[in-house]
Amino acid sequence: MSSGLFQSDIQIPRRHVVVFCDDAFGPQADRWFDLLPEGCHRILPVFDSGFDAAHPTCRPRVEAFLDAHPSLFDRALSLVVPGGEVAKNDPKVVDSVLAAIHAENICRQSFVAIFGGGAVLDAVGFAASIAHRGVKVLRFPTTTLAQDDAGIGVKNGVNHHNEKNWRGVFAVPTAVINDFSLLASLSDRDWRSGFSEAVKVALLKDTREFELLEQHVEAIARRSEVESQRAIIRSAELHWRHIVEGGDPFEDEIARPLDYGHWSAHRLERLTGGALKHGEAVAIGLGIDAALAVELGRSTPDFQRRVLGVLHKFGFTLDHPQLDDRAAIFMGIEQFRAHLGGALTLTLVAEPGVPFDIHDADFALISSAIERHRSMVRTLLA
Amino acid sequence: MSSGLFQSDIQIPRRHVVVFCDDAFGPQADRWFDLLPEGCHRILPVFDSGFDAAHPTCRPRVEAFLDAHPSLFDRALSLVVPGGEVAKNDPKVVDSVLAAIHAENICRQSFVAIFGGGAVLDAVGFAASIAHRGVKVLRFPTTTLAQDDAGIGVKNGVNHHNEKNWRGVFAVPTAVINDFSLLASLSDRDWRSGFSEAVKVALLKDTREFELLEQHVEAIARRSEVESQRAIIRSAELHWRHIVEGGDPFEDEIARPLDYGHWSAHRLERLTGGALKHGEAVAIGLGIDAALAVELGRSTPDFQRRVLGVLHKFGFTLDHPQLDDRAAIFMGIEQFRAHLGGALTLTLVAEPGVPFDIHDADFALISSAIERHRSMVRTLLA
Repeated sequence: MSSGLFQSDIQIPRRHVVVFCDDAFGPQADRWFDLLPEGCHRILPVFDSGFDAAHPTCRPRVEAFLDAHPSLFDRALSLVVPGGEVAKNDPKVVDSVLAAIHAENICRQSFVAIFGGGAVLDAVGFAASIAHRGVKVLRFPTTTLAQDDAGIGVKNGVNHHNEKNWRGVFAVPTAVINDFSLLASLSDRDWRSGFSEAVKVALLKDTREFELLEQHVEAIARRSEVESQRAIIRSAELHWRHIVEGGDPFEDEIARPLDYGHWSAHRLERLTGGALKHGEAVAIGLGIDAALAVELGRSTPDFQRRVLGVLHKFGFTLDHPQLDDRAAIFMGIEQFRAHLGGALTLTLVAEPGVPFDIHDADFALISSAIERHRSMVRTLLA
Repeated sequence: MSSGLFQSDIQIPRRHVVVFCDDAFGPQADRWFDLLPEGCHRILPVFDSGFDAAHPTCRPRVEAFLDAHPSLFDRALSLVVPGGEVAKNDPKVVDSVLAAIHAENICRQSFVAIFGGGAVLDAVGFAASIAHRGVKVLRFPTTTLAQDDAGIGVKNGVNHHNEKNWRGVFAVPTAVINDFSLLASLSDRDWRSGFSEAVKVALLKDTREFELLEQHVEAIARRSEVESQRAIIRSAELHWRHIVEGGDPFEDEIARPLDYGHWSAHRLERLTGGALKHGEAVAIGLGIDAALAVELGRSTPDFQRRVLGVLHKFGFTLDHPQLDDRAAIFMGIEQFRAHLGGALTLTLVAEPGVPFDIHDADFALISSAIERHRSMVRTLLA
């Protein structure tokens, strides 16, 4: 009697949708209206304070637009939360979103519409994901990085115990709406910061795209619309394909190939106290990992030169005084392993479109790779 | 250029496994060992303080057992957390589990093994679900209620804003291990409390099972092994089938049929400050909903009498002074609607195995149903 075993796969119906437009709160609104369920939806708009300050016309315009469509939306009072890594470091940000969700009667059938960069999408998305076991989310990414990478992911989270994304959950937003008009107010520094992730995903998955980025880098750096939008769309698509076609959207496996270049990038962000932005740290991280592949005899200096060349033309600074402390950087390897759990799995790239995994990396190896990276940067700048 | 739409279903591989045994930490251990991935697993055992006090030999036995299998387990220091609804009301419980996960280096490939009743499974499971975007969980339910219902669910959560389960996420445990030996130390009151959920799920889904419960109620009430284990296994199976076969495991839809009898039960738990246990409140809630179906002309006094009859024979008290305040009970309808979101959907039962939904319920109707329930209880006790 006391035996028995019930086991079955469980189907969790989820759909991952990314839509691109020039103006989501104008004539193109039906691009995302059409993605919503039937009926009138309670909606809580949450804005990144950095975006709100740089783009002050957006919030009133969004509010007026939602109010002008009362058959579709029942708007809650907007919330503005601190932008940048503060959103993920200060637990009060998640608490303030949870308080607004409660005060504004946002239920499981309502929406939280998030306007912000990657950090705000992460922190506000986390709050929405743990209220009522998950309130629906619409993401309106406001940076190149959030549009071509961070906003496409199905991760949410905040920092804790001085570790990035220590608290978090996987959750698929109802839709990611990449509105290019929201990028107009970005500083050149923030504009540039999105494209190291575009280089990363092209190196991992698409030789032709890497060549296109090499061809278009100057046009993108001067923010030419056609080349920039094409690159953002393609990067978003490659990240999206990895999630929907890769078979491991919630990262149950040990490998995390999209984190190419990230073990040292996360460490550099921490060590510089956020002085290096994520995209800037990733540019350096890609350089170090390219050098690491050469150091292992799996790649060539020519490949390394191409990687650094395109990043340099985007305007990234590829060396940093923090690289002097190789032991401190090396700790990033162990933190990366621990966050994923199990044995170390680092994805590197031998040549565009040819990734490979390694499972150990000692201090001598990492140290040589950093030296090789810095040496190539000096050659490039000479 | 600036248009584009990527959309695709996303496959999230999850498996829902429930295993039954007489002694998970003895000769039957291979029943659940076989469900684990290959390799040695870091494991953090967390115990419900109520269970730990009532069953003091269990924790040292589990610890010794894990230590005796070093090729399978790398045991972390055990944690004991407050049992019962305190686990879900006091945010320090979640914080203490998160702190232990960090201090004991529990990663995404490690396990948190939870020994406890439904409330502890909920709160500790919630903490595990938000660390590293989800640490793996093994559930060892220690009450009849947790074995036949709560532990089978894929919900986790804690109370907040004075509302049940306001913070929470859906997450599928690696396995639910229903070890009958863990029930030996239950008080008769806690033993009984699990069986109102067995009555509920039989009424919703399985006419024959309801008849069996009517036949076996005296044997189960005196804790006869064969009848009790059969009833627990069948209730667990019916709950499990609803999740794996119902097509809506993460409750994206508005209806929540397994919450038959629960709108008033949740309210009664709150109003009595926890003096009524969940299973006791559900017994009264089932009675009220049976009366409601009669009041609506959809069911018969004979059905209502059968429902109350079997609950009474289990030993449940079916009236409560709190029912005098019908307005306070009625508020449960709105709270139930708000938690699910959207329009009200209440699932009722017309006769065993024949559920139906209603979408409104005014005060006069609820008030009459409560009166009808109390009147039938008086008849039953006369």
